[in-house]
Amino acid sequence: MIKKQIKFEGNAIVYCQGMYTTTCGKTAHGLVRRSRRYQILSVVDRTVAGQDAGTVLDGKPAGIPLLASLDEAILAAEKQGTPASHLVVGIAPDGGGLPEEARRDIYLALEHGLNADSGLHTYLLDDPEFVRAAEQGHATIRDIRKTPSRDQLHFFSGKIEDVKALKIALLGTDSAVGKRTTAWRLVDELNAAGYYTELIGTGQTAWLQGARYGIRLDALICDFLPGELEYAVCQAWQEQRPRIIIIEGQGSLLHPAYPGGFEILAATRPDIIILQHAPARTVYDGTEGYVIHPLAKQIAAIEMISEKPVVAVTLNHEDIPVDQIYAVSRDLATDTGLPVVDVLRQDIQPLLDTILTHLSKYENSAH
Amino acid sequence: MIKKQIKFEGNAIVYCQGMYTTTCGKTAHGLVRRSRRYQILSVVDRTVAGQDAGTVLDGKPAGIPLLASLDEAILAAEKQGTPASHLVVGIAPDGGGLPEEARRDIYLALEHGLNADSGLHTYLLDDPEFVRAAEQGHATIRDIRKTPSRDQLHFFSGKIEDVKALKIALLGTDSAVGKRTTAWRLVDELNAAGYYTELIGTGQTAWLQGARYGIRLDALICDFLPGELEYAVCQAWQEQRPRIIIIEGQGSLLHPAYPGGFEILAATRPDIIILQHAPARTVYDGTEGYVIHPLAKQIAAIEMISEKPVVAVTLNHEDIPVDQIYAVSRDLATDTGLPVVDVLRQDIQPLLDTILTHLSKYENSAH
Repeated sequence: MIKKQIKFEGNAIVYCQGMYTTTCGKTAHGLVRRSRRYQILSVVDRTVAGQDAGTVLDGKPAGIPLLASLDEAILAAEKQGTPASHLVVGIAPDGGGLPEEARRDIYLALEHGLNADSGLHTYLLDDPEFVRAAEQGHATIRDIRKTPSRDQLHFFSGKIEDVKALKIALLGTDSAVGKRTTAWRLVDELNAAGYYTELIGTGQTAWLQGARYGIRLDALICDFLPGELEYAVCQAWQEQRPRIIIIEGQGSLLHPAYPGGFEILAATRPDIIILQHAPARTVYDGTEGYVIHPLAKQIAAIEMISEKPVVAVTLNHEDIPVDQIYAVSRDLATDTGLPVVDVLRQDIQPLLDTILTHLSKYENSAH
Repeated sequence: MIKKQIKFEGNAIVYCQGMYTTTCGKTAHGLVRRSRRYQILSVVDRTVAGQDAGTVLDGKPAGIPLLASLDEAILAAEKQGTPASHLVVGIAPDGGGLPEEARRDIYLALEHGLNADSGLHTYLLDDPEFVRAAEQGHATIRDIRKTPSRDQLHFFSGKIEDVKALKIALLGTDSAVGKRTTAWRLVDELNAAGYYTELIGTGQTAWLQGARYGIRLDALICDFLPGELEYAVCQAWQEQRPRIIIIEGQGSLLHPAYPGGFEILAATRPDIIILQHAPARTVYDGTEGYVIHPLAKQIAAIEMISEKPVVAVTLNHEDIPVDQIYAVSRDLATDTGLPVVDVLRQDIQPLLDTILTHLSKYENSAH
């Protein structure tokens, strides 16, 4: 039934020097939490070296060590009989550029024969030194954020109306807030429960993790964004016939620097929306002093734009003491009248129940 | 005081074969209404040949003849002693591609020595036949919709907060609804009245018409859109110190295929919004069957997202009988409680008064 499988590509070291505990490490976080495309051997970041990458991130071990340097990571992999085949550049600095130390390490990795996959704005392939190092090491470089050429792109056609799966947009009240993590968790749980669900990835991390359908939104040419979103959803529907499609959001509706979600609401035309929220954040990620709009306001804005309901809030527990997560989530549920679940720390069942109620309603309605 | 002037570039024939009376001719419409970069000699479209381009468009002559063919346009220009130097491709087909007849005509124009400026998605420079024809004719080709390379682009910085001009976003309830035309009209009138005003163009037509500041939004890479919008506004402010900045909108907030305006609200942070509306339209431009949201809903959505007021509605009289324009505009004013003005057919003073009231309030407030 599932016709398009992601090819397993090899053993990867994730490079995240100095950034694993910041939102600039979110590509690395995604790969520690989930990876189908690679087996993740280790994450490089000396600031948290010696610990388990999962423990640092989510409080539970992932079996992936944090190591102090690239050299150490390469040696450890060889010693364990699982030599690395790939270096994944797991940093996403706000400006998109490449720190000098990272440049040097990537250069050495390529010379050493590791293939490099990068989601940076700065293309590795545009740098003659990297290209030369790759030639010397017989390694390949992939810039997965490269803007696709126009002849591969699609305009919006309205074919989205033919998709008969329940479409869920997983939006967020901020950027780098955990939309993708929650989306994958739901995909896994719904599939495990027998409800065949596909993810539409919209960022480079979802691709690195092995999403079969989607776009890399940041790298697209603006005029094609709605059409490409629609095309990805239609392709998943036509090839797989899932019952549920979850669309990963990008940015946030009212974010000054990363306004996002509008195109997803406009072009994929979701039936329901789930909203990821970090209650302890005060200003929008990556900005100085732009205060995050209240949750109620963000829900109202999404519902006004989409004319579809926000049916649940998913919680990012960042900066909330562990013993207060339940209280925070209970209070938010009271305030919004919606189920509120931290998918990394709490029972996910209430969230699944909400989705399945909407699935049943959707499948029983004439469409 | 005005330091950056657009260079006059030459005499242009606008190519719009078969499309002048459709929204696909909107680039040509823009150039007929206003052109600082070129003197417009004629517009090619056999379906309305023999008439004046301004009369067909707005009911009043522009002194620009519509001619049946490119040959005729070239000959007419030579006969009048103002030979053409440029062919501007004034068609913007929905798919972005190039009809076969247009291909042939552009080829002949280049061979003949006319420089070609094109805002099509299909780049003329990517086509070896056009390049060869340009070499033969000693002509140059410019694809003004070409995506700029990343190293020329900017991320959002928050510097927009330093801009002390009154910022007006000119949004629309649909795409191809007249936002740019209204924006230019306001720029001209405000400048004539002594209130120095700059336009931030956001499409290729505004550039062709001679806008000094702005972006070509459709061609940008998504991740840079907010930063480029902010940069253009900041640049206009820093170089010119205008009292008013008007930002041309693109698409429409709730349009399924061309959702737009969010990034402008997010990144340029306007103080007030003016909304262009075509009451006789029923479905969104370029879509089949997506019904346009009511004006009141669109105003509410814009105000919710921006937290700034829509202060006036500007009317596109398309498909409204001339003798009913006043009644329609009066009814809309009653419904919305806002001034409603057709800037092409009605006295623009009430609109200017509204803007100047807000300017005065803005300049008297602490900012």
